[in-house]
Amino acid sequence: MKTEKIILGIDPGTMLMGYGLVLQKGNELNMICMGVIKLNKLDNQALKLKKIFERVLELVDEYHPDELAIEAPFFGKNVQSMLKLGRAQGVAMAAALFRDIPIFEYSPRKIKQSITGNGAASKEQVAAMVQKLCNFTEHPDYLDATDAMAAAVCHSFQNKLNIVNENEAKLPKIPKGKKSVSGWAEFLAKNPDKKV
Amino acid sequence: MKTEKIILGIDPGTMLMGYGLVLQKGNELNMICMGVIKLNKLDNQALKLKKIFERVLELVDEYHPDELAIEAPFFGKNVQSMLKLGRAQGVAMAAALFRDIPIFEYSPRKIKQSITGNGAASKEQVAAMVQKLCNFTEHPDYLDATDAMAAAVCHSFQNKLNIVNENEAKLPKIPKGKKSVSGWAEFLAKNPDKKV
Repeated sequence: MKTEKIILGIDPGTMLMGYGLVLQKGNELNMICMGVIKLNKLDNQALKLKKIFERVLELVDEYHPDELAIEAPFFGKNVQSMLKLGRAQGVAMAAALFRDIPIFEYSPRKIKQSITGNGAASKEQVAAMVQKLCNFTEHPDYLDATDAMAAAVCHSFQNKLNIVNENEAKLPKIPKGKKSVSGWAEFLAKNPDKKV
Repeated sequence: MKTEKIILGIDPGTMLMGYGLVLQKGNELNMICMGVIKLNKLDNQALKLKKIFERVLELVDEYHPDELAIEAPFFGKNVQSMLKLGRAQGVAMAAALFRDIPIFEYSPRKIKQSITGNGAASKEQVAAMVQKLCNFTEHPDYLDATDAMAAAVCHSFQNKLNIVNENEAKLPKIPKGKKSVSGWAEFLAKNPDKKV
């Protein structure tokens, strides 16, 4: 089993999209880089979507992440804002899918719970824990960046739980997190008879 | 002014995505091809999104459309289905944006109104009118294909209205349809001082 992997975390929004890259090496996590894609100055939705796609593709091509972890709220917004959010998520996902990177989704509550132990933690609390967990002291200008890091860290925790289960108890592997999306290569490997 | 253009129409769905390519030559419209991207047998949302992205990119690279017309409902679904629909739209749009193709959105009602004169027309009525308008007799297996053709035809009608306005009355150009999205090149041409 590969013990080192790079996880790209994305916190999609229609004004700011946060991203964070985490290197997971055994039990150690380290921040590679983080930041935000600023969309609020682009008054045209197409330009926003284009910028998200291009920037995520750049990140993918520069850092070659093994997996994408995305924060995905499912409730609480109206249909129009959900459509816009869905589009923003869709173009970010397209960049990863284009390069055959598996995608994992986590709800905001699940991410907060996993990082701080409290599903209703503030962004500041999440940021402080992410700093500790990923060994950095920088304060980002926007907490969307640490939110994205948190999605990546949350995903790495799910993997670790899986490893513990496999090694210690040989329990049947229970899916952790909400894996709605997996890589093309993986799908074909599991389903050699299915050519779509 | 270019008198010949190719319009790619898309009717996005999470089970079936219709597409249609229309050649507009002066006042004449002709169907180039149409079809559906079948998604209902893919049980994983990532695979669906990947298939949409790859197929739309193939269509774009094979037929080099000048513009993308997309059917975009804004109301009437719950937040979860709108998020899924937004993702499907987002990946289809990403393929066009990736190749710098401007995107135009039309509501289902606007498309039906524009094709049949009745905003509540049935899919069969829309299909029959699209056949007449685009000079073909084939009956597609799925009406999602003719719905996509209808989006392209609706968009070509908006252009014609603009040409009439420009030639006959020299009226200030009023945007027709809901153009939420335009090409990168066009944006930079209009805003030479804005480098994002």
